[in-house]
Amino acid sequence: MTYRVHIRVVPRAGLLDPQGQAVEHALAVLGFEGAGDVRVGRAIELAIDAASPEAAEAAARKMCERLLANPVTEDFSLAVEG
Amino acid sequence: MTYRVHIRVVPRAGLLDPQGQAVEHALAVLGFEGAGDVRVGRAIELAIDAASPEAAEAAARKMCERLLANPVTEDFSLAVEG
Repeated sequence: MTYRVHIRVVPRAGLLDPQGQAVEHALAVLGFEGAGDVRVGRAIELAIDAASPEAAEAAARKMCERLLANPVTEDFSLAVEG
Repeated sequence: MTYRVHIRVVPRAGLLDPQGQAVEHALAVLGFEGAGDVRVGRAIELAIDAASPEAAEAAARKMCERLLANPVTEDFSLAVEG
């Protein structure tokens, strides 16, 4: 069966995030108040053929570890859709 | 109260996504089989001061419409964390 997997890759907490800072500044300039601590990362969606949701998640985790996320600077999270 | 909002911005279905194609190709080269239809977008997390989760979501939606997403080429989705 084919599962749709949603992956989020974000800069690790405590690491500098210039893109997040730029967005935070732009939001303030546009008049949005009360927004802070902005982090910008990547959202990756893909279809994975697997026998079960658990197998799809395990495959996606390996993909993150090998290609999609930088283990030194980034954290990732996974969600498998029905 | 401060709410943590998770935003996903992805290229609209049907639009070309060169970054997604590159990732798909790289996964195949690395030997990952059964992965396809890869889309790469942005994952944005921010803290919003608001009176309720609904108010935080409404504020985040406005931010997406004005700054964070391109309404012509991208779709966005929101999730407010307790």
